[in-house]
Amino acid sequence: MFVTNADVDHLAGLLTLRESQSFTLLGSPATLAQVDGGIFGVLNKDLVKKRLAALDREADTGLGLIVKPFAVPGKVALYLEDENLAVGAETETTVGLEIGDGAKRFFYVPGCAEINEGVITRLTGAELLFFDGTTFTDSEMVDLGLSKKTAWRMGHVAMSGEKGSLKRLAPCGIGRKIYVHINNTNPVLIEDSPQRAETARAGWDIAYDGMEISL
Amino acid sequence: MFVTNADVDHLAGLLTLRESQSFTLLGSPATLAQVDGGIFGVLNKDLVKKRLAALDREADTGLGLIVKPFAVPGKVALYLEDENLAVGAETETTVGLEIGDGAKRFFYVPGCAEINEGVITRLTGAELLFFDGTTFTDSEMVDLGLSKKTAWRMGHVAMSGEKGSLKRLAPCGIGRKIYVHINNTNPVLIEDSPQRAETARAGWDIAYDGMEISL
Repeated sequence: MFVTNADVDHLAGLLTLRESQSFTLLGSPATLAQVDGGIFGVLNKDLVKKRLAALDREADTGLGLIVKPFAVPGKVALYLEDENLAVGAETETTVGLEIGDGAKRFFYVPGCAEINEGVITRLTGAELLFFDGTTFTDSEMVDLGLSKKTAWRMGHVAMSGEKGSLKRLAPCGIGRKIYVHINNTNPVLIEDSPQRAETARAGWDIAYDGMEISL
Repeated sequence: MFVTNADVDHLAGLLTLRESQSFTLLGSPATLAQVDGGIFGVLNKDLVKKRLAALDREADTGLGLIVKPFAVPGKVALYLEDENLAVGAETETTVGLEIGDGAKRFFYVPGCAEINEGVITRLTGAELLFFDGTTFTDSEMVDLGLSKKTAWRMGHVAMSGEKGSLKRLAPCGIGRKIYVHINNTNPVLIEDSPQRAETARAGWDIAYDGMEISL
């Protein structure tokens, strides 16, 4: 298991695997530092092995898959924000993963604040991509009165708009594109919504629980 | 909201109320200390007010209910266990609650390692009791091969047996008795099980999601 950043939606699930589940937990040093104390002490040290994964280095999961984490534009976890907050910084606090078995490989990028040239270069020509699908518009949470924060401020690039993933990733020749990490405000979750139709026309699938992919 | 101890099953739910939910969080100093740092920083200080509740003192929830916490036999949270672990100690790490509106009152005791004379004295004659229903037998988790820990070792008194809640609370003249905090291994969750029938004969109900009680 690889945790790509330290926000609640990535770490809280560890608490439900507590006590008697055996697994290896990979993550960047910055992210794994957040599961080092406090309530995460419920992860039984005899069963849960933590392995630090450095940026741009291959890490063996022991499950037949090699994972290489890389920094993407993001931010620190909400509870670590302070006056030095730099949204869009490319550090080990928010990573994407290149996952392969030696023959095939794919990318998993559940959080990404901006699709810059570095991201485009890396993802161009990928056979399969799972990508940040948090919101459809950048102002989605604000427009709904649920938050004062744009998607950008939360460390996520929206699907739509000039800077959005639909437009920015369109020319990258990616074989299969699947949105993950979709917020419950995102209208693409509604099967007959115009936004869902727009993502489908652009060649994107919307992930669902139990989805299986063959590569 | 009152957290009666600091174990994952009491605290982890706070992480799903994060960011934009307004509420007051009550608990003993020892318990609230565990939500003071780390990932619990997601609880927005402008919306979530923390209020320390001392043992045996009434605390106003601001919701028309007065809550008085009292120590019951228990233990510290799993992740705080060390060589000084004292299962059955009566400290502020595990509390029961007396909850009232000035006219009526009831007891909520989701974790209790032992029904000693103090517990019996306090609960005798109660009009309504919600009580620790974690396991049916003390060795339930061990017998199923799921854990090496008895219910006692986890800080819970079993329902059955000489020391169990069925027998020990039977003579207390409690008006209505409802088991809560029921582990998924407990056979009373199976509606046609003999254990369920036994609890029903002893006058206990089994709590369920959405249950409503009138007092």
